Amino acid sequence: MCFLVHIIKGNQNGINNKGVNLMIDNNFKSIHEQAKKWVYEAGEFIRDSLDKPMLIETKSNANDLVTEIDKSTEEFFVNKIRDFYPSHKIIGEEGFGDREANLSGTVWIIDPIDGTMNFVHQKRNFAISVGIYHDGVGMIGLIYDVISDVLYEARKGAGAFKNGSPLERFSGERKLKESILGINGYWATENRRVEHESVQKLIKAVRGTRSYGSAALEFAYLAEGVMDGYVTMKLAPWDIAAGIVIIEEVGGITSRADGSAISLEGNNSIVSSHPSIHKEITKEYIQLKDNPSI
Amino acid sequence: MCFLVHIIKGNQNGINNKGVNLMIDNNFKSIHEQAKKWVYEAGEFIRDSLDKPMLIETKSNANDLVTEIDKSTEEFFVNKIRDFYPSHKIIGEEGFGDREANLSGTVWIIDPIDGTMNFVHQKRNFAISVGIYHDGVGMIGLIYDVISDVLYEARKGAGAFKNGSPLERFSGERKLKESILGINGYWATENRRVEHESVQKLIKAVRGTRSYGSAALEFAYLAEGVMDGYVTMKLAPWDIAAGIVIIEEVGGITSRADGSAISLEGNNSIVSSHPSIHKEITKEYIQLKDNPSI
Repeated sequence: MCFLVHIIKGNQNGINNKGVNLMIDNNFKSIHEQAKKWVYEAGEFIRDSLDKPMLIETKSNANDLVTEIDKSTEEFFVNKIRDFYPSHKIIGEEGFGDREANLSGTVWIIDPIDGTMNFVHQKRNFAISVGIYHDGVGMIGLIYDVISDVLYEARKGAGAFKNGSPLERFSGERKLKESILGINGYWATENRRVEHESVQKLIKAVRGTRSYGSAALEFAYLAEGVMDGYVTMKLAPWDIAAGIVIIEEVGGITSRADGSAISLEGNNSIVSSHPSIHKEITKEYIQLKDNPSI
Repeated sequence: MCFLVHIIKGNQNGINNKGVNLMIDNNFKSIHEQAKKWVYEAGEFIRDSLDKPMLIETKSNANDLVTEIDKSTEEFFVNKIRDFYPSHKIIGEEGFGDREANLSGTVWIIDPIDGTMNFVHQKRNFAISVGIYHDGVGMIGLIYDVISDVLYEARKGAGAFKNGSPLERFSGERKLKESILGINGYWATENRRVEHESVQKLIKAVRGTRSYGSAALEFAYLAEGVMDGYVTMKLAPWDIAAGIVIIEEVGGITSRADGSAISLEGNNSIVSSHPSIHKEITKEYIQLKDNPSI
């Protein structure tokens, strides 16, 4: 309703920038509500799938099954989006989206199940991750911890929420030596992406490290202050699209691990953190290897 | 009631081994129920403490506060135990127990808050851990995830349970390369306890690693099959006493990290896992440093 009112106002008064912004705001407010409904619906579908023993336990290769649920969940989103928002583009992990999507216009970036290994082995600690971008700008982020039934969400300029309660913006100073960092021990072993000695120094510099096995959830935990930073290599756009929006709304910073800007048109090694420790991590610790695919 | 019946039977028939065993079983069944009540009561106290903003948020040094809650929780247990079971000994992290307790007789080994860093930084993902041993044998293990309100418990020979539902015993073969291992990245950096290169090889050998920051909870997650192994160095008796009992009841193995037997009279670097990967981890990967205090 508000959306229509603003269009009319715009037409009457000549659409000025303020009018256009309000129009976009209200448009994304409505898209946000719609996306949220689909996320909850998809979550219910995934929970139901887990409840059926035949789906999980009668197959010898659990990874096949996950792919099946992954795919049907992504297909569900793609069908809904194409039906409701035919002009929107879709980038999804399972390939049901657009084959060659760029970031112009409104783009949904979807991971139907983020944390696949947890999904298979733990049957919990995984999330649906939906980021919605407009001309490359993050507008909406939804991260849904399906088993815990906890939704983290944010809309640009409107703040971030956990199950409807506002998340506090990052404030004060955080010292690296008193920080908890999300980082997997794998990056402290020799690998193609990052100098592992630099990661080892970082692990020793912080108060403690944690690793939960879902990028989306680690962004969410960072947003709610359960961790102070999250560092990982080679994430796909659907791993980070929602998280970036939520972190921005609580006043955090997400960049490539060398401090440069994220590009959602390829993979990124990332540092996302409280602003007071971001530069220190990217400049004084993380040394990426010379690898064009990061 | 049953306890009394068996004593009478024993007196009538002459106490044979079976009678003594039944007596002990029933005794520990009753102690188990009592301990569980206290654990829930202590959990409520801790949750109430977290709800009071002044306790958490008005102090500059959060660690002081934790010590306060740690101490009052341990004191609560110690007072109850001394009142109800004056002949029992107590070993507790905060020092309210017996100063020089050995493991003869019935001994309570208590960590009022396991995962202190999580308690302070995350206000979740910590646990009350209570292990009850008789002449050095683990009889009862209770691990209570206070915020999630999830109790993991086991009594020797009676199985392990999560919120009252039986946990399945470990079965089948587990391959290391398909396993999820609880291990903190810190052990992949140079340290006094373990050759970090050996840990790095282990991290690369498994499917994935996780780190949750509470030894008690990592034992619990292992017991419910969310992880296949848990490896860490230099744990105190109260970090592992409950976990060992629960893991044993689901058919897992806990040893020192070199494969030798745990001693609850000092610290232990440990490997706890599904039986099919235990020997491989201790023999082919973990290389402890020559340090008598592990």
